Amino acid sequence: MTVTAAAPGEGPLAMICGGGSLPLAVADAVAARGRRVVLFPLRGAAEGTPVERHSHHWIYVGQIGKFLRLARAEGCREVVFIGALVRPSIWQVHPDLVGLSFLPKVLRAFRGGDNHLLSGMGKLLEGEGLRLRGAHEVAPQILVPDGVLGRVQMTERDRADIALGLDYLHAAGPFDVGQAVIVAGRHILAVEAAEGTDGMLARMAEMRANGRVRAPRGAGVLVKAPKPHQDRRFDLPSVGPTTVEGAARAGLAGIAVIAGETVIAEPAAMTVAADKAGLFVVGVRGPAS
Amino acid sequence: MTVTAAAPGEGPLAMICGGGSLPLAVADAVAARGRRVVLFPLRGAAEGTPVERHSHHWIYVGQIGKFLRLARAEGCREVVFIGALVRPSIWQVHPDLVGLSFLPKVLRAFRGGDNHLLSGMGKLLEGEGLRLRGAHEVAPQILVPDGVLGRVQMTERDRADIALGLDYLHAAGPFDVGQAVIVAGRHILAVEAAEGTDGMLARMAEMRANGRVRAPRGAGVLVKAPKPHQDRRFDLPSVGPTTVEGAARAGLAGIAVIAGETVIAEPAAMTVAADKAGLFVVGVRGPAS
Repeated sequence: MTVTAAAPGEGPLAMICGGGSLPLAVADAVAARGRRVVLFPLRGAAEGTPVERHSHHWIYVGQIGKFLRLARAEGCREVVFIGALVRPSIWQVHPDLVGLSFLPKVLRAFRGGDNHLLSGMGKLLEGEGLRLRGAHEVAPQILVPDGVLGRVQMTERDRADIALGLDYLHAAGPFDVGQAVIVAGRHILAVEAAEGTDGMLARMAEMRANGRVRAPRGAGVLVKAPKPHQDRRFDLPSVGPTTVEGAARAGLAGIAVIAGETVIAEPAAMTVAADKAGLFVVGVRGPAS
Repeated sequence: MTVTAAAPGEGPLAMICGGGSLPLAVADAVAARGRRVVLFPLRGAAEGTPVERHSHHWIYVGQIGKFLRLARAEGCREVVFIGALVRPSIWQVHPDLVGLSFLPKVLRAFRGGDNHLLSGMGKLLEGEGLRLRGAHEVAPQILVPDGVLGRVQMTERDRADIALGLDYLHAAGPFDVGQAVIVAGRHILAVEAAEGTDGMLARMAEMRANGRVRAPRGAGVLVKAPKPHQDRRFDLPSVGPTTVEGAARAGLAGIAVIAGETVIAEPAAMTVAADKAGLFVVGVRGPAS
């Protein structure tokens, strides 16, 4: 993977923003590098995000025509899609004429799990003169670095669990299934698919509570990695304080992600949360990188 | 896989029985073939099973010495382990002297997911003069046959989902993860690990209810297969009426399992339940067989 540093000379960056803390973290990181950002927060997903600190235009998911017009007027030639978009109801879509033609692809693009559609989406936008970039390209400082982030270190047992998890994710990659597993004592205890990482962590907590999993608390690692052939412009794995909270409730020892290929939301807050919970967070080099 | 039909001349069969309806279904099937069975229902797991219709001796999980003595006294030279044993608390183990030496292995054997330990358990029992057999060997009529079981047929779309599910399970096999996935529209929506098949089906129902999965009801297949190198004497996948109920609540189109390598609890009840719910149940030949 080549990380290209964004230069101010590239003009303002359009960012279509779903929910969660990640979009603003990326926007701030891009702005900190001296590049202007223009946010396009999505109605029904990005409410509550303090978008006011950047230029912004609220849009409905379906308003592709409006987005293209405004992005051009703002002088944007590059666009990033970022953030969660769960369950846009049909009333939140509001397609304009251009949106009507894009609509099915947009909805599926945000759902994740389909590289072909996402790449197709990129091609369509490029046909409109906009280049699709990954958050990791425009704000490389938001990527998880190599090594342990906080004060808690891994044990040898954790390393073995991480190695097994990475091997599994690599083998499962061609099936376009989830990006994460929980491994404890060299057993895979949970595999992420449509439920998402937070859902899987909640299940792990439940399985410990009901005795289905008897591994002691403080054993087990959340291992998260991009799919081997994933288009990193769209769907880079991300972790943040919420991930730490979920992992702590699940009784895990720590979290391992791929250095340089994982976005970290609120790194300072995440490190504090991990130290407080006694969890390690580590960026490793995986078989997929 | 070679299926060896059990002959009455092999003497009575000892069956160590956990919970669920499967142990008695197997016992009845063995008895129907003219072979006497001696049940060893496990306290804390098999309560509620109407064991009275066969010879039986209640034992605690840890009473291996008692089991060996009684099994020999009954003239048994072969033993089958079958049924669920979730969460035996430490007070339910009651190890005798022999049990104390076997204990760690027994507990782990019932947990599933570790072929080496299970095979080791088989070797240990063989050292005691007992041969460990699989339920599929002693009662081949309890295996799912080739083809559709009830009245509901598969569509081409279902076939494609089944093929993808089997490919995934084959690829994931070396990782000793779960035996089942849910596939809809050629997307893997759920992967089973420590939560078990019923847990995964419940999650799928929940993901439909909360909108996380938007596949229409009546789409998606539960695909279940033995692990590629699984010791089939211990841990053959099983399905039954409960599986049908779970799949119906999850809004699936049907259930696909490997013919000849899947145990079916209460086949008649399961077929009735599937027909009533409008689900297909099919035995297929998988890449693992």
